[in-house]
Amino acid sequence: MKLSVVGASGYVGGELLRLLLLHPRVEVQQATSESQAGKLVAGVHPNLRKLTTLRFCSLDELEPCDVLFSALPHGHFMSRFDQLRSIAPRIVDLSADFRFRSAEAYTQWYGHEHTKPEALGRFVYGIPELHREEIRNASHVTGAGCLATTAILGLMPLFAAGLVRDNEVFIEAKVGSSAAGNAASLATHHPERSGAVRSFQPTGHRHTGEIIQELSFHGTPRVHFSATAIELVRGVHVTAHLFLREDLDEKGLWNVYRRAYGAEPFIRIVKEAKGVYRYPEPKILIGSNYCDVSFEKDARSGRVVVMAALDNLMKGAAGNGVQAMNLMAGWDERLGLEFPGLHPV
Amino acid sequence: MKLSVVGASGYVGGELLRLLLLHPRVEVQQATSESQAGKLVAGVHPNLRKLTTLRFCSLDELEPCDVLFSALPHGHFMSRFDQLRSIAPRIVDLSADFRFRSAEAYTQWYGHEHTKPEALGRFVYGIPELHREEIRNASHVTGAGCLATTAILGLMPLFAAGLVRDNEVFIEAKVGSSAAGNAASLATHHPERSGAVRSFQPTGHRHTGEIIQELSFHGTPRVHFSATAIELVRGVHVTAHLFLREDLDEKGLWNVYRRAYGAEPFIRIVKEAKGVYRYPEPKILIGSNYCDVSFEKDARSGRVVVMAALDNLMKGAAGNGVQAMNLMAGWDERLGLEFPGLHPV
Amino acid sequence: MKLSVVGASGYVGGELLRLLLLHPRVEVQQATSESQAGKLVAGVHPNLRKLTTLRFCSLDELEPCDVLFSALPHGHFMSRFDQLRSIAPRIVDLSADFRFRSAEAYTQWYGHEHTKPEALGRFVYGIPELHREEIRNASHVTGAGCLATTAILGLMPLFAAGLVRDNEVFIEAKVGSSAAGNAASLATHHPERSGAVRSFQPTGHRHTGEIIQELSFHGTPRVHFSATAIELVRGVHVTAHLFLREDLDEKGLWNVYRRAYGAEPFIRIVKEAKGVYRYPEPKILIGSNYCDVSFEKDARSGRVVVMAALDNLMKGAAGNGVQAMNLMAGWDERLGLEFPGLHPV
Amino acid sequence: MKLSVVGASGYVGGELLRLLLLHPRVEVQQATSESQAGKLVAGVHPNLRKLTTLRFCSLDELEPCDVLFSALPHGHFMSRFDQLRSIAPRIVDLSADFRFRSAEAYTQWYGHEHTKPEALGRFVYGIPELHREEIRNASHVTGAGCLATTAILGLMPLFAAGLVRDNEVFIEAKVGSSAAGNAASLATHHPERSGAVRSFQPTGHRHTGEIIQELSFHGTPRVHFSATAIELVRGVHVTAHLFLREDLDEKGLWNVYRRAYGAEPFIRIVKEAKGVYRYPEPKILIGSNYCDVSFEKDARSGRVVVMAALDNLMKGAAGNGVQAMNLMAGWDERLGLEFPGLHPV
Repeated sequence: MKLSVVGASGYVGGELLRLLLLHPRVEVQQATSESQAGKLVAGVHPNLRKLTTLRFCSLDELEPCDVLFSALPHGHFMSRFDQLRSIAPRIVDLSADFRFRSAEAYTQWYGHEHTKPEALGRFVYGIPELHREEIRNASHVTGAGCLATTAILGLMPLFAAGLVRDNEVFIEAKVGSSAAGNAASLATHHPERSGAVRSFQPTGHRHTGEIIQELSFHGTPRVHFSATAIELVRGVHVTAHLFLREDLDEKGLWNVYRRAYGAEPFIRIVKEAKGVYRYPEPKILIGSNYCDVSFEKDARSGRVVVMAALDNLMKGAAGNGVQAMNLMAGWDERLGLEFPGLHPV
Repeated sequence: MKLSVVGASGYVGGELLRLLLLHPRVEVQQATSESQAGKLVAGVHPNLRKLTTLRFCSLDELEPCDVLFSALPHGHFMSRFDQLRSIAPRIVDLSADFRFRSAEAYTQWYGHEHTKPEALGRFVYGIPELHREEIRNASHVTGAGCLATTAILGLMPLFAAGLVRDNEVFIEAKVGSSAAGNAASLATHHPERSGAVRSFQPTGHRHTGEIIQELSFHGTPRVHFSATAIELVRGVHVTAHLFLREDLDEKGLWNVYRRAYGAEPFIRIVKEAKGVYRYPEPKILIGSNYCDVSFEKDARSGRVVVMAALDNLMKGAAGNGVQAMNLMAGWDERLGLEFPGLHPV
Repeated sequence: MKLSVVGASGYVGGELLRLLLLHPRVEVQQATSESQAGKLVAGVHPNLRKLTTLRFCSLDELEPCDVLFSALPHGHFMSRFDQLRSIAPRIVDLSADFRFRSAEAYTQWYGHEHTKPEALGRFVYGIPELHREEIRNASHVTGAGCLATTAILGLMPLFAAGLVRDNEVFIEAKVGSSAAGNAASLATHHPERSGAVRSFQPTGHRHTGEIIQELSFHGTPRVHFSATAIELVRGVHVTAHLFLREDLDEKGLWNVYRRAYGAEPFIRIVKEAKGVYRYPEPKILIGSNYCDVSFEKDARSGRVVVMAALDNLMKGAAGNGVQAMNLMAGWDERLGLEFPGLHPV
Repeated sequence: MKLSVVGASGYVGGELLRLLLLHPRVEVQQATSESQAGKLVAGVHPNLRKLTTLRFCSLDELEPCDVLFSALPHGHFMSRFDQLRSIAPRIVDLSADFRFRSAEAYTQWYGHEHTKPEALGRFVYGIPELHREEIRNASHVTGAGCLATTAILGLMPLFAAGLVRDNEVFIEAKVGSSAAGNAASLATHHPERSGAVRSFQPTGHRHTGEIIQELSFHGTPRVHFSATAIELVRGVHVTAHLFLREDLDEKGLWNVYRRAYGAEPFIRIVKEAKGVYRYPEPKILIGSNYCDVSFEKDARSGRVVVMAALDNLMKGAAGNGVQAMNLMAGWDERLGLEFPGLHPV
């Protein structure tokens, strides 16, 4: 199967190339970058040295292929959509351009009108743990926000089971610097960003909209979300607080999570009585496609704390996209995603 | 004024020595450490080389002094209390042993009986921003938990003004490795601790009890607290979520915070429209005694997000203790605490 | 092919298990740990959760297998050698116990007598780039020190070609915290080790002996070596300074390095005129088996600066061991070592 | 005494302001920045919030003062020199513009002609440990390169005593990200710079020229210098290798260093038999004006390894400049430089 990656010079694009160049069933045909066209892919992604001699080409040089991955910036994919869908019958788009099912959500969370509202219905929100069957049958799949994916995967079992009191949850996501992409600025300048604990979006974060959309199993949930940048390159960690509608103990919660995730290849329920890694932690997920999830019930108040972690460039972007492609192609969804993460790291 | 520091080989003890050795009005008489007795203070705290030739002595060698600082581990101060109060008329204890006003709170949060309940009333909870006048008149002052201090200082203006709906707040505190002290373990071994985002206490953290005690302006608040260790050596950052009882806009919130903190020498309200450091961030507070606080109101839901940051060894421990001592002595409370923090760092 | 790993609870043991559990041609039969016997492997190496349900056993429970990997601490392998060689016909030992070819070297560098000098000749120093044919035919292979491997691979082309003036070189190796193993101490306690630049062995480092042994192509070289711990978990970086015996320009040096390494699967000559990653850098090698090498000639003085980098747990230990095993088994030496490293990370 | 800082929006400028605003004998009159003119100083240097309400002005608005500090970029000070010397009778320039005593050195190390060669003789190379008396009597003092300062202070005792064989030394300097200033680029973008070990200048570093100039006690030394960026924000660490002309043991070396530095307020000889901080380490120097130096003799070969560390923005720039100013003013040179550094940090 031949595939190409558009927008391949960014961090998500580079991660896609790493996964696809080593994937046993696909061949990478082209990688586009307007700013790097003509240059060696390995000159931009130095970890790919010796793995490929591919050079970036321009979008205008794209040739037909079986699957097209897009890692274009938000807004750019939308404006190229008609061109790109003529290139390949199947598209996995990792931008935010088709994540929402309603055009109104774009107005609300992105502050502008969607320019292709008629195409919103074509795309499946590509988290396999929520939409596996739709993805299998889809020709167009969209990725998901990395913070949203972490929160959604952590909370889905409780919301799907209708267990959340008032349908309400308070979430803080902590995230590494790679999630903001490869554009240098004063805020990402190493002396400023190093050791930061930066409330970059205490309210109003766009991923809130995705969390609301995907957790609307029993009406629209009340999602209170804050995002904080911390000292990490890769990684997202979410802590969420909620109450239950009924009196479930920890064993009952175990059952809810096992029922939801027991058969999932990339979800691990991490909850141990002792040891260093008792709960989800992003550092051991670097490079892996796992999302680790956990929960703890506060004996004093009944509050349930949900925790989840993943690598924003993997399960939060490129890895999740490859998992979706595997499903679309009818393959084992783990293909090319075997790397389990490192310890120590 | 002569003072001594007991338990001076730990991180809080070292920080106390650094501050007191350079304090213009005091003289450090003795520094105790049972494990390091006889050794040079600067051998344990290498930043004090050239500043002092003091050696640690044993607790049993303590001589009378004007003020005694204790940085003994929790439980140890309590058991030595009768001995120590005979050494000095004034004591600043930075352990948790006398932070609660009720013995029941120790049973609830520490899981054991307090062995000196009759002395609980002697101590003032030593956060000057809440108890300045009591501290001025006190002979015994206790420190405050570093996570508790951050949360309390961030939230006090709203709770004191009775503005918090249902008296309820959800808090996540993120904290660096130095807060756990200088005892090495696998969990703090650099390859394991580096880059961690570790939910070490999702529920049941002992500082919750302090937050409840100090925010009980209008009845007992419902405090939902989680603690997460992140990649930092020094620093605490708190994100808290709550709703208001009445419809205050951001300008109204500014007024509440300015009224509470406008005259405070060590509180800064940090809330800027642009720039890298728009909200409180612990990295620029390393070594300083500031606590930076902020807030943001969610236009969509009315949720108020409160943020606060400090250096756990300074405003979260030793610095706050020196500020309290300055008040007890009748001096300018800023004495010896002028270091403003670094940028970049 | 069945294999077992002894000393599998340490960092090198864990990395061996990660590689071998995913290796397409081998089956992991047993993993020993005296301290963790009976416990789940994934409880100690949390990145292996969901990958294996293996439990550690004791050395005394070892059953016969085809290849035995040992990651026992220095000295322990030697004392168990007779037992272990009866378990498996082929052994890859990653301790230092059989790295030197002469017993005298142990006295000199380790300060004690070797207790099995008669077995020293059985082992091949297992760096494939230097001893490929011997490894193919060997039944016993020893690993190499991680700092030594980096220095040797960086410098080998020049020493092998007899190009180094006075056979003399000055080397500083910088290394991450994982190279010191998983035993916690004050020196590795996160608040102390974080951000360190620590000259832990300015002179007398044991790996010097290995470098001397392996670079003795034209007589015994004069190796001046210093080791410095820096803020990294994984990674070694070497900077070395030497002069040439003859007047070779940079193009000539390129030829020397290409001749030595042009066909090597795990060596990359990294030397670019511009860009961020112009020279070897350990961060993009985390988890990979590459050693990146480079050189630059000082136009003013003729000094040649050699640079090299690798992941101490991979090409510096477990990865190199698996590469050697692949050779011993007659397989493609890249099997199971395809992970190319990450960017960014 | 009134003073102004030109080029005050950069990292060195910010550090100067921090020191001078708290200095007991001076008053900061103006701070210039062409890019930030009109804006609050504390908006750019957030650690100065609450400490000053000063705003940046333009160079053209400069008013006469007693001492002018310049932290303008290299080349800019030179071109403004005539204007600036009319503003203040005393100038401390922290750029490289007047560090060399000969114009030829600029051609050699900076690759361009010096445009004010006639003024080179006016400036004293401002390291007090080498030029204290000249600084006391100088009206114009230049700062020193941060890497050069570290190497010079580490090596001076041996070169001054004529003890270095062949007058030859091999040096590797490791440095944090703040030394490159506050201009963001891909190389300093956090995901790329974090965890780096980057040979940014293996040969040809400009500071080599300063080291040569200042160590020319007994003829021109042969200085072989390489510079490597590592994971630090603040800090320089140097490892240098040399041989002695005569057979001095470690006790003899102690005497040489004590003779040179025994009375120096900001040099500490750090050489301990055990403990974590046995040699100089930059992390405990953050914010302090100390330069820690050490040495170790290789028992096997006679090689002497010299180590030195400092904070590049302090003893490597602003702190050293304030020390020089104190001397020029006839004050205790420690004024305003009392902060001893932190532990842990």
